[in-house]
Amino acid sequence: MDVLRWEGERLYLLDQRELPHRVEYLPCSHYRDVAAAIRQLSVRGAPAIGVAAAFGYALAAFNYSEDGKVALSEYMEEAARELLATRPTAVNLRWALDEMRAAYQALNGKSLKEIRDGLLAAAFKIQAAEKKRDERMASFGASLIPSRACILTYCNTGALATTGWGTALGIIREAHRQGKDLHIYVPETRPVLQGARLTAWELQEAGIPYTLITDNMAGYVFAHGGIDLVLVGADCIAASGDFANKIGTYTLSVLANYHNCPFYVAAPLSTVDLTVKTGQEIPIEMRDPREVREIGGKLITLEGCPVLNPSFDVVPHQLVTAFITDKGILKPPFEEALAAAFKGGSE
Amino acid sequence: MDVLRWEGERLYLLDQRELPHRVEYLPCSHYRDVAAAIRQLSVRGAPAIGVAAAFGYALAAFNYSEDGKVALSEYMEEAARELLATRPTAVNLRWALDEMRAAYQALNGKSLKEIRDGLLAAAFKIQAAEKKRDERMASFGASLIPSRACILTYCNTGALATTGWGTALGIIREAHRQGKDLHIYVPETRPVLQGARLTAWELQEAGIPYTLITDNMAGYVFAHGGIDLVLVGADCIAASGDFANKIGTYTLSVLANYHNCPFYVAAPLSTVDLTVKTGQEIPIEMRDPREVREIGGKLITLEGCPVLNPSFDVVPHQLVTAFITDKGILKPPFEEALAAAFKGGSE
Repeated sequence: MDVLRWEGERLYLLDQRELPHRVEYLPCSHYRDVAAAIRQLSVRGAPAIGVAAAFGYALAAFNYSEDGKVALSEYMEEAARELLATRPTAVNLRWALDEMRAAYQALNGKSLKEIRDGLLAAAFKIQAAEKKRDERMASFGASLIPSRACILTYCNTGALATTGWGTALGIIREAHRQGKDLHIYVPETRPVLQGARLTAWELQEAGIPYTLITDNMAGYVFAHGGIDLVLVGADCIAASGDFANKIGTYTLSVLANYHNCPFYVAAPLSTVDLTVKTGQEIPIEMRDPREVREIGGKLITLEGCPVLNPSFDVVPHQLVTAFITDKGILKPPFEEALAAAFKGGSE
Repeated sequence: MDVLRWEGERLYLLDQRELPHRVEYLPCSHYRDVAAAIRQLSVRGAPAIGVAAAFGYALAAFNYSEDGKVALSEYMEEAARELLATRPTAVNLRWALDEMRAAYQALNGKSLKEIRDGLLAAAFKIQAAEKKRDERMASFGASLIPSRACILTYCNTGALATTGWGTALGIIREAHRQGKDLHIYVPETRPVLQGARLTAWELQEAGIPYTLITDNMAGYVFAHGGIDLVLVGADCIAASGDFANKIGTYTLSVLANYHNCPFYVAAPLSTVDLTVKTGQEIPIEMRDPREVREIGGKLITLEGCPVLNPSFDVVPHQLVTAFITDKGILKPPFEEALAAAFKGGSE
């Protein structure tokens, strides 16, 4: 199943809000449709957001009309700004848009048709590179998984989250493919239930044994000796190794620490922002209170009751065992390891 | 609002499954109706379960018909067995039924009418005693609350959970009444959402400032320095001081420990079972998987997907700062403190 598909000057996005109950594609004929789809979580997962935004930026060149009212460069900059503003925490979004802007600069002086074709090719290249990165992470990460293991994962980090193989879930798929005997614990991941709706579905399809739990059952499973390792994704990794991921990840890191359980984070280097020094500087997106008050559009509490809805929390690097990246496995001290991984060059 | 009401040889139970959306009473004309109501969580909260079961046992005497087919004693024993089997973890349930059985023994040889009246009086006495215990806990517990405090509570421990003032929430009410400046964080408490549905509602009605969060946000609130103390109830306290409470309590205790935050447990001594030596011996009720797969009757994941649904988890006594009981505040070492509290005699 494709997370996104380009067809006839339109981007079709799998509407992940409807999964697993319905498989529906949102047709996006304007870059603002893509921005809206990202904001409303129809497409989510840091790497997939980056890929969708890249296609959204390319789409802007198709939306541009040469009526002389606004210069193409201005139009493209406005599109980049709007796409970037959709989700403040995901680093991959900015990374992908920076790549696309550079591609646009390189097309300077070409015809509108050449620019459109060039930007579309650049978006496809970002998607292909994402898949390659997932494959490398899967291969590095699988080496850390014992031949029998119970793994706690979180949120959704699969194909749906990257458009490729997935980050944490890609590693789980690869370890399963290698014949390892795995059992995956999947917290449902309130408020938007990515675990219950997306990860359970991907594991079911892949034939990997799993158990769905509510988020507050993680401690019970740890206490009963049920977890050999934790494996999660990331939305932003700071230079220190502190990282942000789906709300609830911090709680899992504290539980893993208390139970002396390895805690691994799988993310491509495009998730790292070395200009962000520590976790305290990571901007945390606060979302609509209705996500907490409602489940599937149904009110579960008092109308208008006061709620908090941070979409992410921050795990301090001290609670991380290792980062599994497309450049290899990074161990503490993370500040040095991350800096060295970047010096190794990107491709 | 009454949690339960006796009227015309019937017990009316507030159907807590429908709160806060609808206020409806379930009429119970047979003790088996009461058993079904307890099983399906129409009435919940360890002390309230005990009170409802006491009235259910009294109701059995009203259901008994003197046709000579079965002896009254046998009939009453069967009723006690069925009521006891509804929820395996709550100690107050067994405690209340033991009190009622003793009341029945004391009525030995009386007429059926006298037995009915006597058992009903015994049930009312249990309810009145519950309220007294709540008042004493509230008074002891409020002394531990600073004049300004952010408190994390869990599940529902209010009037709805005890038929009186509440345990943990009763203490919060009392501290608020004393003019203390409180802010309460309320995790929603999946799967059945007692926090979102019942505690938010009770706090709103009482005018106590609160914020509803999803269960996985507790770590975020701790990490942002938002919690001064944790205050929860209990369903079973073992002789060691290990205790069982709503699933997710263990995770909160680990978070409190990591953040050097006091962790208080409010429960009457009727929640303590000294014959249970440690937490490992506490029977944990496993409930219907549909509670996890569905929210408000709506499927949130794949039909039939594998889930775990323990209704409780166990907190080791090392993670407890103090127990707030109707006999005073118990501090470590808990084994000695609990034994001494029992020797102090009950009333």
